[in-house]
Amino acid sequence: MFDLIKTTAMVDAALNEYLAPASTFPREIHEAVRYSVFAGGKRLRPMLTLATAKIFGAPDLAVLPAACAIELVHTYSLIHDDLPALDNDDFRRGRPSSHKVFGEAMAILAGDALLTRAFELLSVEGVKVLPSATVVRLVAELGRAAGAAGMIGGQVVDIQSEGQPPNAEILDYIHRHKTGALFTCCIRSGALVGGASTHEIDSLTAFAGHIGLAFQIVDDILDVIGDETKLGKKIGSDESKHKMTYPALFGMENAKKKADDCLQAAREEVRIFGKRADKLLWLAQKLVEREN
Amino acid sequence: MFDLIKTTAMVDAALNEYLAPASTFPREIHEAVRYSVFAGGKRLRPMLTLATAKIFGAPDLAVLPAACAIELVHTYSLIHDDLPALDNDDFRRGRPSSHKVFGEAMAILAGDALLTRAFELLSVEGVKVLPSATVVRLVAELGRAAGAAGMIGGQVVDIQSEGQPPNAEILDYIHRHKTGALFTCCIRSGALVGGASTHEIDSLTAFAGHIGLAFQIVDDILDVIGDETKLGKKIGSDESKHKMTYPALFGMENAKKKADDCLQAAREEVRIFGKRADKLLWLAQKLVEREN
Repeated sequence: MFDLIKTTAMVDAALNEYLAPASTFPREIHEAVRYSVFAGGKRLRPMLTLATAKIFGAPDLAVLPAACAIELVHTYSLIHDDLPALDNDDFRRGRPSSHKVFGEAMAILAGDALLTRAFELLSVEGVKVLPSATVVRLVAELGRAAGAAGMIGGQVVDIQSEGQPPNAEILDYIHRHKTGALFTCCIRSGALVGGASTHEIDSLTAFAGHIGLAFQIVDDILDVIGDETKLGKKIGSDESKHKMTYPALFGMENAKKKADDCLQAAREEVRIFGKRADKLLWLAQKLVEREN
Repeated sequence: MFDLIKTTAMVDAALNEYLAPASTFPREIHEAVRYSVFAGGKRLRPMLTLATAKIFGAPDLAVLPAACAIELVHTYSLIHDDLPALDNDDFRRGRPSSHKVFGEAMAILAGDALLTRAFELLSVEGVKVLPSATVVRLVAELGRAAGAAGMIGGQVVDIQSEGQPPNAEILDYIHRHKTGALFTCCIRSGALVGGASTHEIDSLTAFAGHIGLAFQIVDDILDVIGDETKLGKKIGSDESKHKMTYPALFGMENAKKKADDCLQAAREEVRIFGKRADKLLWLAQKLVEREN
């Protein structure tokens, strides 16, 4: 349906091309950047962008700058989240996290460099394959999704809510912002590259909201009942950090049901595209049924 | 010549408009962002952008998105530089630094939010007053200047060179990247907004290189012989951190002479603009003759 291995290889090749070689002076920053970008990430976000653009028949080459820029923003957020001052995670995808390998200073700067490079490549590479007006919209989209009104806002509330009594409204805010905003950005960016109409973008935005939430609920569930070998990290970290999660708030069965409901609601939203959305739907289902 | 007070007020008003109110949820991140942006910064970078665009008669309203985006990037870099893992500075402009007031996690996120907002406002506000093609070039310019090939690269080498034997080549790299890259971005961005020709941009880029270097040398000098009250910080911090500086490497008199030589070389570069560059030259001279 959607060749995951081939698409991952294509995204990896593009990322490799978009990043300076590890031998570039000053080496350590480029090594740190590449260590995290090529850490075995599943490239789910670029795939969502590519699959969405396929609805409109956009060629992959026109989508890759936006798809890869989002992946760089995702990677930067993981590096900064793992820092001792934030989630203090020593491992990520089964390997020592950036600050454990390169030190805190370099991890902070590697995150900064990735965030900066995301916007730079969106502009420099984007304008080679897209009209300037589309590139400007993509920059605005990524900025909004990644900023204090999006991902960073979610991270702030997540930190502040640790150890607080569970609260469905706050949990919803965290999920919709910390992961949801960038998920929505993936899908809206694919739609923008594809030249979608306002109405089509609205439907896809609603779709993205449901899928993003389902993805996060599954993330919470896997942290309780997942397979540590498949996940590449210890389970139970949310509980030990007193994080608000769906299973903790609603119980495991209700959390699973909510993820399924989200997937169903997402399906409804893209019915207008008929068979053209099959690839995107298949990918969305994979995200919800994943084991890692 | 160039009304500093009026221009500062205009830049401050624009920054205030471009940033979410401090009461926006989640409050703490917006408070942290505003704490650092409105900490009494002299707005030198926005002024350079505005003064450069004046050569070409560009209206201030068309320049403010780029000018303010650069100021946000500068502010983020100060917050992250002050972190315990980097320069570990507890004070900035006479006030406690961000992490002392809001904690390390919030300081990291406030820096991230500012960097992200810089690109977002450049796109969202920029496109209201400039052609999309110009906005894309401004995003590319800021990304290159702020990234691992620019400011971040300078910061990396600065950290790595602490306590190392003085080396003119490394010191030159640090200065040209850590402060020089963003200075050059200010001036090139003003030129881009103004619609400068390639030849004019080249001259202004050379001008910016000289002025950026002079500015940094003066910074080094003030850290040795400056007035702590005017500077709002303790002098001697470079020496106590074993930082490579111009006075340390070449002696105080040679450092002063080098700053003057840079200013002279800068003047030569903008001779092609005649009187039109008077405001920019006057501002450049102010930067080199400053006491804080």
